[in-house]
Amino acid sequence: MKKYFLPVAFFAFVSVSLRAQTPTKKFEPVSFSQVTITDNFWKPKLDKVATTTLQACIYQTEGKTARIRNFEKVARKQNEKHEGIYYDDSDVYKALEAIAYSLKNHPDAALEKKADEWIDKIAAAQLPDGYLNTYYTLTDLSKRWTDMEKHEDYNAGHLLEAAVAYYNTTGKRKLLDVAIRFADHIDNTFRLQNRHWVSGHQEIELALMKLYHATHNDRYLKLADWYLEQRGHGYGKGVIWDQWKDPKYCQDDVPVKEQKEITGHAVRAMYLYTGAADVAAATKDAGYLQAMNNVWEDVIFRNMYITGGIGSSGKNEGFSKDFDLPNEEAYCETCASVGMVFWNQRMNLLTGDAKYVDVLERSLYNGALDGLSLSGDRFFYGNPLASSGQHARSEWFGTACCPSNISRLVASLGDYIYGQSAKGLWVNLFVGSHTTIKVGKSTIPVKMETNYPWNGNVKVILNPTKPVKYAVNLRIPGWVKGTPAPGNLYSFTSHAASAFKVSVNGKPATYREENGYAVLDRNWRQGDVVELNLPMEIKRVTAKTDLTYTNDRVALQRGPLVYCVEGADNNGQAWNIILPENTALEAKQYTVLNEPVMAIQAKAPVIITSADGTGVQTQQKEVIAIPYYTWANRGKNPMQVWLPTKVKEVKINSGN
Amino acid sequence: MKKYFLPVAFFAFVSVSLRAQTPTKKFEPVSFSQVTITDNFWKPKLDKVATTTLQACIYQTEGKTARIRNFEKVARKQNEKHEGIYYDDSDVYKALEAIAYSLKNHPDAALEKKADEWIDKIAAAQLPDGYLNTYYTLTDLSKRWTDMEKHEDYNAGHLLEAAVAYYNTTGKRKLLDVAIRFADHIDNTFRLQNRHWVSGHQEIELALMKLYHATHNDRYLKLADWYLEQRGHGYGKGVIWDQWKDPKYCQDDVPVKEQKEITGHAVRAMYLYTGAADVAAATKDAGYLQAMNNVWEDVIFRNMYITGGIGSSGKNEGFSKDFDLPNEEAYCETCASVGMVFWNQRMNLLTGDAKYVDVLERSLYNGALDGLSLSGDRFFYGNPLASSGQHARSEWFGTACCPSNISRLVASLGDYIYGQSAKGLWVNLFVGSHTTIKVGKSTIPVKMETNYPWNGNVKVILNPTKPVKYAVNLRIPGWVKGTPAPGNLYSFTSHAASAFKVSVNGKPATYREENGYAVLDRNWRQGDVVELNLPMEIKRVTAKTDLTYTNDRVALQRGPLVYCVEGADNNGQAWNIILPENTALEAKQYTVLNEPVMAIQAKAPVIITSADGTGVQTQQKEVIAIPYYTWANRGKNPMQVWLPTKVKEVKINSGN
Repeated sequence: MKKYFLPVAFFAFVSVSLRAQTPTKKFEPVSFSQVTITDNFWKPKLDKVATTTLQACIYQTEGKTARIRNFEKVARKQNEKHEGIYYDDSDVYKALEAIAYSLKNHPDAALEKKADEWIDKIAAAQLPDGYLNTYYTLTDLSKRWTDMEKHEDYNAGHLLEAAVAYYNTTGKRKLLDVAIRFADHIDNTFRLQNRHWVSGHQEIELALMKLYHATHNDRYLKLADWYLEQRGHGYGKGVIWDQWKDPKYCQDDVPVKEQKEITGHAVRAMYLYTGAADVAAATKDAGYLQAMNNVWEDVIFRNMYITGGIGSSGKNEGFSKDFDLPNEEAYCETCASVGMVFWNQRMNLLTGDAKYVDVLERSLYNGALDGLSLSGDRFFYGNPLASSGQHARSEWFGTACCPSNISRLVASLGDYIYGQSAKGLWVNLFVGSHTTIKVGKSTIPVKMETNYPWNGNVKVILNPTKPVKYAVNLRIPGWVKGTPAPGNLYSFTSHAASAFKVSVNGKPATYREENGYAVLDRNWRQGDVVELNLPMEIKRVTAKTDLTYTNDRVALQRGPLVYCVEGADNNGQAWNIILPENTALEAKQYTVLNEPVMAIQAKAPVIITSADGTGVQTQQKEVIAIPYYTWANRGKNPMQVWLPTKVKEVKINSGN
Repeated sequence: MKKYFLPVAFFAFVSVSLRAQTPTKKFEPVSFSQVTITDNFWKPKLDKVATTTLQACIYQTEGKTARIRNFEKVARKQNEKHEGIYYDDSDVYKALEAIAYSLKNHPDAALEKKADEWIDKIAAAQLPDGYLNTYYTLTDLSKRWTDMEKHEDYNAGHLLEAAVAYYNTTGKRKLLDVAIRFADHIDNTFRLQNRHWVSGHQEIELALMKLYHATHNDRYLKLADWYLEQRGHGYGKGVIWDQWKDPKYCQDDVPVKEQKEITGHAVRAMYLYTGAADVAAATKDAGYLQAMNNVWEDVIFRNMYITGGIGSSGKNEGFSKDFDLPNEEAYCETCASVGMVFWNQRMNLLTGDAKYVDVLERSLYNGALDGLSLSGDRFFYGNPLASSGQHARSEWFGTACCPSNISRLVASLGDYIYGQSAKGLWVNLFVGSHTTIKVGKSTIPVKMETNYPWNGNVKVILNPTKPVKYAVNLRIPGWVKGTPAPGNLYSFTSHAASAFKVSVNGKPATYREENGYAVLDRNWRQGDVVELNLPMEIKRVTAKTDLTYTNDRVALQRGPLVYCVEGADNNGQAWNIILPENTALEAKQYTVLNEPVMAIQAKAPVIITSADGTGVQTQQKEVIAIPYYTWANRGKNPMQVWLPTKVKEVKINSGN
């Protein structure tokens, strides 16, 4: 057994600002902790997460399962048995992180008390050398750090993220100190000993970068970078490598900087590249960016669903081969879409290019949001794009990564709306909210008003106390444009695309287009109102023919939302509808369960069965399509995102 | 490390008869080594196995993969690396076993030479203490016998089976001696040391019983019994228990004698119960039989496909919940159907009840035979009952259990045709063949002539040198009867079932029905001809409504064969056909690839698409159904076993 070097001064980094700037980022995101969300679409969802989803997480984590009990058992030191799976600690941390974000927009004393109570239990379970893992501590501590697949550093990463988030919202640092001790333990055990270690489930890299930015201690940056450098050299040991013989599964077949293709487990990949982008931004290491450009294009051009979901195969919870994107069998784990949001945010910061936010927005409003029921207490682990009616949301899962992941994403929405730099303001997502940005020495209150995604009008109201010159960068979503970017898997065949409009104080404004943003560079005064008007036409989307699953099929999109046809709105069926080229499509006020939405309405050929079941015929019928994220909230129902434009053949369903 | 007790006299059991009789069996099977197959249906398949399938196995085992090389590496002792997976040794043994059977009906000097060459390499890889396993010997011998999932005794079991089979055909005992040494090593290491061990993949139990019957050394019976007794007491250690926490997976959650339900991995279950039946027959232990009656009914009444396939779920390669038998997603591993043949044979011997042979025949002619292409060199691992055209047979598999398993089953067909006891002859399968049975002191040549399964006429010609009184037991297949047995999942709604006929020397014979057999108890003379005439009507099969996947659907069966509709015979489609109640069905001479078969022909409503894809209508069309085992031999094609009797709704297929 190695001896652990414990630095004496690990409490030394307290007073430093928590929002660090790294030089190569084009701008910094405004933290959730500085953004108040008032949005018509999102605020009720944030409230639902606080009042319902997090309650479900707490009930499952401490009431129904042993996740909290395991920490208590470690603290009691009475040789009690570990219950559950070795990665269960992470669910506690992720729920805590979600609570941390939630407290910002939905303060709740009881929730904060619960978090403090958990934090006490977690702290009590940390070993004197900083190690913190209920599985190994309760089973056989001598086996710790032997199987790299056993999620020890994955758990650690989620602890770090929770600690930073909780500190950011509350200023309380008990959990942060626990995280620092554990991070130091890991650094001492591996990097400082030149002991090789490949994380079997990436996560700690991005988490260490958060800790680095929170503490300004560059040992965490070094450790994150070291973790990245460990991959692809055959250092892996444990079940992935020795038993499954599948280093690709955790992107360990090739050094990160040499990776060109997306492979393996989707969530692992997303967390890896998020961490790599964070490290690249801090170290200015161009190698990671080059690799990620290639990998990103491999995702977007050949391996992403229209919903922004990724990882089509349930077998490896990940990628199979290019264009293998089946609809009904789509795995599309909720966590992978959450990971797409993380990674694309980092790529946007690193490059200043809005195309990454287009993907982020696609994953957020569709693939990720679909993981959470409208009621807030049911979840999808996988998010298929078609269903024969077999799919239903669950209360929970044995492997429970998704519920707390979608909770923390929704609760942290504030992180993704605004950006700021010395030169100006970036508006990435259109969400009713207010914040205060720093431009040079000026502090500028900013307010956004919108009914997005139902309506394309976005007002940004600027309130500098005295006039100040800076640039306002308004993202012009990729879906506004009629023509797809080269290489893109999906393209729009829209009815007469109209242009977006930008005005200031009610008058058309001059702007330049740069990196996907409309840039308004001018002297701003208190009360200036910037208006962006995005045309909300219904788009017919087609995919490249390489994607054979969607040949002769069309999907519908309006704004950032992908639509689907569900049986609940269409006489119980969804697979008997044809949507020929010339079908007229209309937006319509509609309600799914209690959710007010814009539905899409059409008159289209539908195959009808005779009452006695002996024959079929085609009739023109009213068809309703609803936003994809709202499906599966009214019982088991057939559903389709991609509708046929013509019939090649039919399959008869009988009784089941 | 334990010391191994090596018995001095392990060569002592050589001269004893290899076909042992155990008292509680109702009769003994006639061994393949005593049966010459001349059958129109089966002989070409046995020849194809010899000339093509086994060549593919050899090519894959020694040419394309490292399976034989691993044995060579052990013998060379040069610290070379193991290649492949820890259970790969078993594929060598299973191919050898298949060769052994094949040499009986299709002698082939080159094949026998290859087998001898492999046996030399295997023998050279055995350690002085009897241990034989290339994985542990080439990786870390100190880890042997630590993870009960690592298939050490599974591999051993297949070695034993191969050794006994090869000895039975050739009389050569080199491999048998290797097997005896390994079996003794295991017995010394565990049973004689009172050291607990749960086999993570059952197989060795039934193999030890073969070794016991071959050697008459009852330590192997004791060891087999001991292996059974180890289960269900929490002794499991290794990945199944410690990591997956799923002892049910290998039927280790409950002691074998207390098991009531079928659970877990299907092949493991079949091998377990086969071994348990073998042990029960030898020890007269009623506990096993009682348990197996319950489990068998759970399989047949609630968990078996109409093809005799079992294990619907790919997730655990096994059973999920009662009546969960999806058609297109059916896993139905070929090996599991092979296991059904094994287990049901043992149950038939133990009880004398023909109902087990009904199941055996169903699995053999459908679920198992489907695993082998008509060309003999392509394989199915899973055998779905419906396909949208995505399924294709493979040349080989990473986990390559199925090809050699179906090879050894077909090649050993002789084991399943006849039974004998002091009282008479049993005819279980209808296969053109000849053998010689022993009835009391008499030796009676027996010959069977038939065109089964295409035709229901079966002639059995008896040639005792002098008249002798005994019983001829002719199995009357369950499918002859119009009404299903109580509890059965499937039932026939046949057009006017006609009765079977039994005659002797051309005249109607008197017989009694007993245990599903027509028993003719009389004085037999040389040249007596017993004729059984089975009505070969086409049966419409329906399933209990609990099996929701087949509600309002019908399957077709003729004789033992289940039929399917494949696109290749029906304008490329198989999901657009309706088969209403009153559809006239006719048998028709037909050819699938080069296989002459009886197809089923009908005129039925078919949903036709207009050329421009805008609409559909129903038309009466000619429909062809082919035997299920012949599908997927003419490229990728949609297929269905269960056809709708009426349309509830349709699904539109578009481009893909």
